[in-house]
Amino acid sequence: MPRMSDYPVIRLRPKANVRAIRRGAPWIFDNELVLDRRTRKLAPGSLAVLEDNEREALGVVAVNPESRIAARMLDRDPAAVVDRAWFKGLLARAQAHRDRLYPAPYYRLVHAEADGLPGLVIDRFGDTCVMQPNAAWADALIEPLTEALVEVTGVTTVMKNAGGRGRSLEGLDDADAVLRGSAPEAALAVEMNGATYMADLTGGQKTGLFYDQRENQRFVQRLAEGARVLDVFSHVGGFALAALAGGAQSALAVDGSAPALSLAEEGARRMGKPLETRQGDAFDVLGALNEDAARFDVVICDPPAFAPSKQALENGLRAYERVAKLAAPLVEEGGYLTLCSCSHAADLSAFTGACLRGIGRAGRRAQLIHTGQAGPDHPLLPQLAESGYLKALVFRL
Amino acid sequence: MPRMSDYPVIRLRPKANVRAIRRGAPWIFDNELVLDRRTRKLAPGSLAVLEDNEREALGVVAVNPESRIAARMLDRDPAAVVDRAWFKGLLARAQAHRDRLYPAPYYRLVHAEADGLPGLVIDRFGDTCVMQPNAAWADALIEPLTEALVEVTGVTTVMKNAGGRGRSLEGLDDADAVLRGSAPEAALAVEMNGATYMADLTGGQKTGLFYDQRENQRFVQRLAEGARVLDVFSHVGGFALAALAGGAQSALAVDGSAPALSLAEEGARRMGKPLETRQGDAFDVLGALNEDAARFDVVICDPPAFAPSKQALENGLRAYERVAKLAAPLVEEGGYLTLCSCSHAADLSAFTGACLRGIGRAGRRAQLIHTGQAGPDHPLLPQLAESGYLKALVFRL
Repeated sequence: MPRMSDYPVIRLRPKANVRAIRRGAPWIFDNELVLDRRTRKLAPGSLAVLEDNEREALGVVAVNPESRIAARMLDRDPAAVVDRAWFKGLLARAQAHRDRLYPAPYYRLVHAEADGLPGLVIDRFGDTCVMQPNAAWADALIEPLTEALVEVTGVTTVMKNAGGRGRSLEGLDDADAVLRGSAPEAALAVEMNGATYMADLTGGQKTGLFYDQRENQRFVQRLAEGARVLDVFSHVGGFALAALAGGAQSALAVDGSAPALSLAEEGARRMGKPLETRQGDAFDVLGALNEDAARFDVVICDPPAFAPSKQALENGLRAYERVAKLAAPLVEEGGYLTLCSCSHAADLSAFTGACLRGIGRAGRRAQLIHTGQAGPDHPLLPQLAESGYLKALVFRL
Repeated sequence: MPRMSDYPVIRLRPKANVRAIRRGAPWIFDNELVLDRRTRKLAPGSLAVLEDNEREALGVVAVNPESRIAARMLDRDPAAVVDRAWFKGLLARAQAHRDRLYPAPYYRLVHAEADGLPGLVIDRFGDTCVMQPNAAWADALIEPLTEALVEVTGVTTVMKNAGGRGRSLEGLDDADAVLRGSAPEAALAVEMNGATYMADLTGGQKTGLFYDQRENQRFVQRLAEGARVLDVFSHVGGFALAALAGGAQSALAVDGSAPALSLAEEGARRMGKPLETRQGDAFDVLGALNEDAARFDVVICDPPAFAPSKQALENGLRAYERVAKLAAPLVEEGGYLTLCSCSHAADLSAFTGACLRGIGRAGRRAQLIHTGQAGPDHPLLPQLAESGYLKALVFRL
């Protein structure tokens, strides 16, 4: 009998997809588990040893009887003890990968399942880390996790962002917290691709920084020299500032959020580059630019998730098509149109189809010159198709 | 009645997929055309105006009654005249895109259908262009095409490479030629990603240079600092030299071709970097390295197309799986494995599946950190799924 940890044992039902779990699937759904009274009583986030229905141990899992995802695999060694030392091992491994890729510690340090820490996201901004514990276990074990994080990274500030959509599915609250140090009083300056981005981590405005588009921003930057650039759904200036750093002649950032656009302007000011901004509904602004017969050499549309769920897929794809149809006429002949989707539910082929329909309805034809995803600090777990969400298509019209 | 050029008219059968053609599909198959005696008599590569079965003109096409692809769309304007000026327009447009992306004129200048020149591939190496006319029209019109190419690019040497697999399907010969200037006497040095590659364009050994992996080589280069690198199916040192330029501690290039490996060695010599090479069958060498329990931090396998056709798909996927299974054990814990496929028939999902099966059978687990395709000088025509062929998956094990 193999050595096992002292955690309680939970068991798979015969109908569970044991093969997928053995192959690396990290989630066990509530209908795959024997949810007897003892198991139901486990506190959300408890650790347990998972056995198949023949009592063979499959590993240590985190249990949440209140979630559709009733258990998440933490370690395939049933003898594993999930403590500070265990966290340190995984965090060090995650950090080694990022430090190999990036010249400075500004990146997504932990990307949930793919980094072996299901439901947990950690972004690093120099001496500050922002944790998103979107699964009950990570909330329950936040203290040893934070200790390990400080020890491995040496950061002085650790913040908890409880705004993740997943938390309510896990029965968790939405209370942000400062776990170590003190929240930065002003927005932090983050250098990426030669541009300066201002990230306000204090939460309220949701004007932090998304690292996932870094490689795609770098790609668009290569097209930007001397170009007139339009960046719609710009947030804190993601593509617009990258384009200016790449020598764009001009850049116009459009966003619904005035605080986000002020941060974009502050970034541009620090770069010594001119940035125009226009606050308003993106569809309205695109319509107005079309009425003015405005033309740009490079246009980027990076909207929020229009299709966050399967139910929203059809409407979401229509919204992507509409964005493409409104944006395409603004692109100069021979210019470039970048269309992005961060919707899990819209896969690459469906999203590409929606973009092409929109471009076609605008009477334009397109070459596809680049298909980008989230950067390598956002690894995928191949066994979990859901972990690939970001798509960036660069067309030449 | 719209203005039309003087080309003979050919007509679609009622069953043809007119909608797809109107949407941008560039190929008309032999069973979609009215192949009457007059049409059959058209010389391969002739130009014609294509009409639907209601006599509405759809554009100017190149006809080849001897090919499955009986007509290829050249211009959706039925009044177009395909001459030197027409070629100049498309070549200038193609060149503007590449010159925006690359600091020096070393790139794929024309990527067939996606650049509006179906079946025609042109690679540029500074003052030399190598054309692959893989469709009959490009052979038939090679002279005005060459004139236009010289005028637009200013190159002094134009070579014709008739080794493309597609040529026999078009009923074309395999005779290479020098169309302008004289063939370079020695291999040319090409700088990419800070590495020096030697390209022997004189044909016999097929040791020219592939530009399509440039972005993926750049990505792997970012992982290479201080690493021990193994590059299997290395050709003239594609990934190995990029890794050395990125600060790899050592690199071993494996290939079946001794001339290719000598070119790789010459590139490394010019870079002042040490490159080890091993000539032999890749599977044998991978087996031998496993017997020696060799370990590398970064391993790349970029084999030739194992699944060039749908018929070969199943065997091809098994071969990719075998490569993954043999390569994975050579990767240090926390190291990186890059697996590539240039098979049209194996789509991304089938190829990923084969790789994961191989990695799994080697007893390893993987994060997928990057999915790359051919670079942006190899654009895709979205209407032609066949034009996306290259896949590069970077796993962390």
